[in-house]
Amino acid sequence: MLPGPTNVPNRVTSAMLTPMINHRSEDFRTLYKDIIAKTQKVFQTNNDIVVLTTSGTGAVEASVVNLIKKGDLVVVPVNGEFGTRLADLVDSIGGKAIRVKAAFGQNPPIEKIIEAFETNRGIKALYAVYNETSTGTTLRYMEKLGKICDDNDAFFVADAVSILGGDELPVDDWNVDICVTASQKALAGPPGLAPISISNEAKRYMQDNPPSTQYLNLKRYFKYYEESYETPFTPAISLFYAFREALEIILEEGMKNRIDRHRKCANAIYAGLGELGLKPFADEAARSNVVIAIKYLNELEDKKFRQILSSQFRVLLAGGFGELKGKVFRIGCMGEVTSYHVMRTLSAISSTMEILNVKPQGNGLSVAHKILTTS
Amino acid sequence: MLPGPTNVPNRVTSAMLTPMINHRSEDFRTLYKDIIAKTQKVFQTNNDIVVLTTSGTGAVEASVVNLIKKGDLVVVPVNGEFGTRLADLVDSIGGKAIRVKAAFGQNPPIEKIIEAFETNRGIKALYAVYNETSTGTTLRYMEKLGKICDDNDAFFVADAVSILGGDELPVDDWNVDICVTASQKALAGPPGLAPISISNEAKRYMQDNPPSTQYLNLKRYFKYYEESYETPFTPAISLFYAFREALEIILEEGMKNRIDRHRKCANAIYAGLGELGLKPFADEAARSNVVIAIKYLNELEDKKFRQILSSQFRVLLAGGFGELKGKVFRIGCMGEVTSYHVMRTLSAISSTMEILNVKPQGNGLSVAHKILTTS
Repeated sequence: MLPGPTNVPNRVTSAMLTPMINHRSEDFRTLYKDIIAKTQKVFQTNNDIVVLTTSGTGAVEASVVNLIKKGDLVVVPVNGEFGTRLADLVDSIGGKAIRVKAAFGQNPPIEKIIEAFETNRGIKALYAVYNETSTGTTLRYMEKLGKICDDNDAFFVADAVSILGGDELPVDDWNVDICVTASQKALAGPPGLAPISISNEAKRYMQDNPPSTQYLNLKRYFKYYEESYETPFTPAISLFYAFREALEIILEEGMKNRIDRHRKCANAIYAGLGELGLKPFADEAARSNVVIAIKYLNELEDKKFRQILSSQFRVLLAGGFGELKGKVFRIGCMGEVTSYHVMRTLSAISSTMEILNVKPQGNGLSVAHKILTTS
Repeated sequence: MLPGPTNVPNRVTSAMLTPMINHRSEDFRTLYKDIIAKTQKVFQTNNDIVVLTTSGTGAVEASVVNLIKKGDLVVVPVNGEFGTRLADLVDSIGGKAIRVKAAFGQNPPIEKIIEAFETNRGIKALYAVYNETSTGTTLRYMEKLGKICDDNDAFFVADAVSILGGDELPVDDWNVDICVTASQKALAGPPGLAPISISNEAKRYMQDNPPSTQYLNLKRYFKYYEESYETPFTPAISLFYAFREALEIILEEGMKNRIDRHRKCANAIYAGLGELGLKPFADEAARSNVVIAIKYLNELEDKKFRQILSSQFRVLLAGGFGELKGKVFRIGCMGEVTSYHVMRTLSAISSTMEILNVKPQGNGLSVAHKILTTS
């Protein structure tokens, strides 16, 4: 139950047994074209797609170095570790990040973002971490951010690494110029690939202003794809096979069903844990359906708590990090998550509380079960 | 018989079926430590090892951006596509590449490299493409380059992407500060990982002068490994399992046996093709044992030749690229290559020549067989 890498379905793992092929062959071109078409469906976009052989961080970096130049003004909502890192990255390559901050666990009021656009002329882009994995919050006004960017002629970039495939993100409808995600989170593939969608306008800019990097240079990926449906550098072919299968599973389920399943599982976890006496770190309005961060009760010690869960119940949860280390634990509610996982996790947490002499307030399992079985 | 990705042994492919693990867990730490220890043996080094989730190009770029700063003088032997790219990369990030050129198919005389050091003060590093995949040449004086660098207090960087595991490269004995390779060439793993070794001196420099990149920032990889035996960003875990198995197979065979096998197979291919009337592109002194580039006879047309080999004999060879497109074909003699592959390839080439009405001069198979069966 980690917030990535998540469990990988057997069908996806088995796809990696496909014998090795040449990445300059018709076999690869067919594979890559198929992946791009399926990724477009999952992203709900007609934009160009590039699949990098990197982690999500590599792709987020690509989204910055290909678009942001020295002196460019960039608005970044900051309410956790990943927003902080993104703003720092913008600054580190010479851009000027305008940080719109909120306390961890809350979303910055959208008025403050509008204000940032009003008080700064010529903002080039807004980079938003859609789901802040470190705190378990989701920006619930992405569609509005798309409109704000449109009105201000700014690029809208979504870091959707930990959420795409587990919550709403219709890229074209929401006017997202660049959308970045990774294979091992809500898409339930093995880690190592990071798909990115790029709008025509962003693409044109990148083609006219390529960065000095080779490996993360998106212009080169466009060129190779347009000329031959290939990647400029040797791709992780086994992971491409796995990723295609992961996308296929998503499309078989359907995006709406998949998002509903994630939402229902999240609701059951929040309600069940609440009944046990455990409270979310995030404000209700900002709560994530894919990464659930829960405040520790004083009586529960992080390491001991997660150690018992792992060794006695074989349930893996993540700790907090940065300034939340030891203060929260985090549950990944993504990818393959079903009622089974929710009930097993709640049951393990409830038992672990008992083992640690922290009496659960109520019957969390019963509350969760009710939610999971109500349509 | 491609010069990468090469055939992957079943043991290696099957290792990817291992269930997904957390990259912040003891399971991963054990895996990564084991990979590093085995990679050190294959590299014949005690230096630090970093494994990037990228292609070889990503790791070569890391070797440049972490070491070379604006204005730094860098000697680069250039005798093919990859040497050209490497020198261009040095220039593109603000370094000054001093190109020591030779005609494609030849190695620059080592005297010209010594001269470059003598006529330019304060050279920071020498970057050498050990095996030039585009032309089928290998720099046969790497050990001497290591000495030259040592004498001149310069860093010695080896791009060994297409050769490590298939020919000699004792990193410590040859004084290589940074050695870069990739998983899918002579190491016979699936593509997507790129191991790099870094000497203490190079490491210290990188730690004191980190680049602005995140994903390719080696300082971060050192830090995470030293603190917790982890990677800073989510690694391609399935490929790590595969890579460990590929390394295990190499160590079971032994480096000496493995290099002898590659050499013998290469000798048999060169001799067999020569008997058929086909000549290597490279000068004899510069010939590669892992990538064999062969000049087309006028009567053989690239596309048709390789198409027949592929469709009728299921033998895949690579074409030339850059200015050698259509002029040469290339045989990967790496990784899993055995007598079986050599004989099957020669037989297919011989038959394809007959199909295209180009009579083979002599019995190439017999000549090759003799070499393969002589100890």
